[in-house]
Amino acid sequence: MEITKPTLLLNKDIALRNIENMVRKANALQLNFRPHFKTHQSAEIAEWFRSAGVKAITVSSLTMANYFAEFGWDDITIAFSVNIPEIPEINELAGRIKLNILIENSEGLEALQEQITRHIGIFIKIDTGYNRTGIEANRTPLIDQLLESIQKSPLLQFKGFLSHTGHTYLANSTHDIFSRHFDALLKMKALKARYISDWPELLISLGDTPSCTLADNFDGVDEIRPGNFVFYDLMQFKLGVCKLTDIAVRMVCPVIAIHNSRNEVVIYGGAIHFAKDSITNIDGKQLFGRIIIREGDEEILLDERNYLYALSQEHGILRITPKDLHYFKPGKLIEILPVHSCLTANLMKEYLTTDGDLIKMMPFY
Amino acid sequence: MEITKPTLLLNKDIALRNIENMVRKANALQLNFRPHFKTHQSAEIAEWFRSAGVKAITVSSLTMANYFAEFGWDDITIAFSVNIPEIPEINELAGRIKLNILIENSEGLEALQEQITRHIGIFIKIDTGYNRTGIEANRTPLIDQLLESIQKSPLLQFKGFLSHTGHTYLANSTHDIFSRHFDALLKMKALKARYISDWPELLISLGDTPSCTLADNFDGVDEIRPGNFVFYDLMQFKLGVCKLTDIAVRMVCPVIAIHNSRNEVVIYGGAIHFAKDSITNIDGKQLFGRIIIREGDEEILLDERNYLYALSQEHGILRITPKDLHYFKPGKLIEILPVHSCLTANLMKEYLTTDGDLIKMMPFY
Repeated sequence: MEITKPTLLLNKDIALRNIENMVRKANALQLNFRPHFKTHQSAEIAEWFRSAGVKAITVSSLTMANYFAEFGWDDITIAFSVNIPEIPEINELAGRIKLNILIENSEGLEALQEQITRHIGIFIKIDTGYNRTGIEANRTPLIDQLLESIQKSPLLQFKGFLSHTGHTYLANSTHDIFSRHFDALLKMKALKARYISDWPELLISLGDTPSCTLADNFDGVDEIRPGNFVFYDLMQFKLGVCKLTDIAVRMVCPVIAIHNSRNEVVIYGGAIHFAKDSITNIDGKQLFGRIIIREGDEEILLDERNYLYALSQEHGILRITPKDLHYFKPGKLIEILPVHSCLTANLMKEYLTTDGDLIKMMPFY
Repeated sequence: MEITKPTLLLNKDIALRNIENMVRKANALQLNFRPHFKTHQSAEIAEWFRSAGVKAITVSSLTMANYFAEFGWDDITIAFSVNIPEIPEINELAGRIKLNILIENSEGLEALQEQITRHIGIFIKIDTGYNRTGIEANRTPLIDQLLESIQKSPLLQFKGFLSHTGHTYLANSTHDIFSRHFDALLKMKALKARYISDWPELLISLGDTPSCTLADNFDGVDEIRPGNFVFYDLMQFKLGVCKLTDIAVRMVCPVIAIHNSRNEVVIYGGAIHFAKDSITNIDGKQLFGRIIIREGDEEILLDERNYLYALSQEHGILRITPKDLHYFKPGKLIEILPVHSCLTANLMKEYLTTDGDLIKMMPFY
């Protein structure tokens, strides 16, 4: 396929290696591996996981659960606290597959108790410090109350405690990632110790890519749910989680114009292709992507003084050092490593693999 | 249709009024009106423009031009400097409709001269100060050279000079918008004066929503191409371009959880629904949306101390003052005015109108 416009290129070998590494690690540590599929959102890539032995998955919405259920995935956790208006549709799906959902308050639980008509697994969402969603781990009176109530509902099966240590993404060093991970471990272990006698089958589920990639201590944890690791990205690289050679996706973009007077290059590729997550570059500015030049078989990664520094709807602007401007000319295709592969993939909706296959993602709902 | 998940609500009356106002203004000022369709990206909404007398349109990509051409739009300007790898496909479309494209360098022009097989209109893209794309208006030697070259190509018809005064979006006051607009006018008028004798049919085309909404002086301009005005958004409101009651789109999002201890509310609605453009709130933080509560027939716009302040992939976090927390409970639907309606619509891919119709947008390419 000839590339004529912004195209998301997927290196299948790297993605397969990333999957294998995480499968191997989960096996070595005797952890259930329930990867998050919100990063790739593709039934075809899901098969790569299946080939590696994965049987149970995580998604971030009912829509995504319905999509993967169509492709034979029958053990799904929606890692999102119950969205009450969707309970009728949750019933439909729970009638067909093993479905788990999260709760984090009595309102969500009561709505489920009133409206649920099928067996469903319930995880209590725990906030281990990310402060986005969940119940703080020390609020055991609330947890006691929720568990007591769950016990009265024969259709609701308590599965355990689930947390997303998302504040590892805000870490300033890998040491900081370890420290946040260990703090989460301690909090989750304390919950396990408190409730295991009443609920001997309860699971502890953790899931961020930084911890799952870097840490080796998962003491007390039963299940991991990383997602981003399948592709990684510049954000993970900057955190010290992956190498640049572990990043499996790149955007290919045509060069539109060179503006020598301000050391800028305009590319076709903007906010509707990359999304707008950024990291801070060495010059203190927002960086939206790193640039790779392909010259024949050779790949040249330009240094950080060359980067994607602005995005409008369809345009991207590269800041380029004078000595590297010669790599660019209108019509040439260049490659960009994205900052946040999940959001970039979500916008692009398809991948062109290094084998030349076009892989579709979940259609827009 | 019952709303159970993030849904983009479109107030048809407001959008129609916004369209009528701009049509009336263009007529009063005797300007060709060639609205930009990259904001709504919908064949159905395009018909609202057609009913208002619009016959010629602007788009931001060949993909979008192909989409609207399918729906009978036969006079389209792709307001994007020519993307050389797409020239074969440009030929296909130019064989079917009146198509204009932009150039801003000799490489783009030469590639067209080598590969174009159909009549096509050429605008020279002028940079009036936005510093994104185009030729600075004072670089007349380059413009002379391009025009001389165009003249030798019978398939290329020079149409005029086109600019997007995008730096009005960076203005600090409406006064500042006027000043940037007048500066652009002067630059474009100077070009017109210089080239009109050789090219008596040349057009001057300008196009940003802030200028087109606020300014009344379009001296020397022949055509306007605003796009965002059909919906407006919080960014336009903050610039002083529109009133809140002119904003035609809102996201409806279910409440997931209340976190009283930190005055936060979690909603279902994240970066994959809103996109991540923000404006600076009164507290100096990033604001991703303003909140409207609907109580029966009453609409309550919460003040700016209540706002959408963080987005992850599917979650949004609202910061809410203690006195307003009572408006929220899990499962309730709330409404959010988006910061940048173009990017939000681009992600949502469909609209639910206030008449209850579901309007589809261009499918993802």
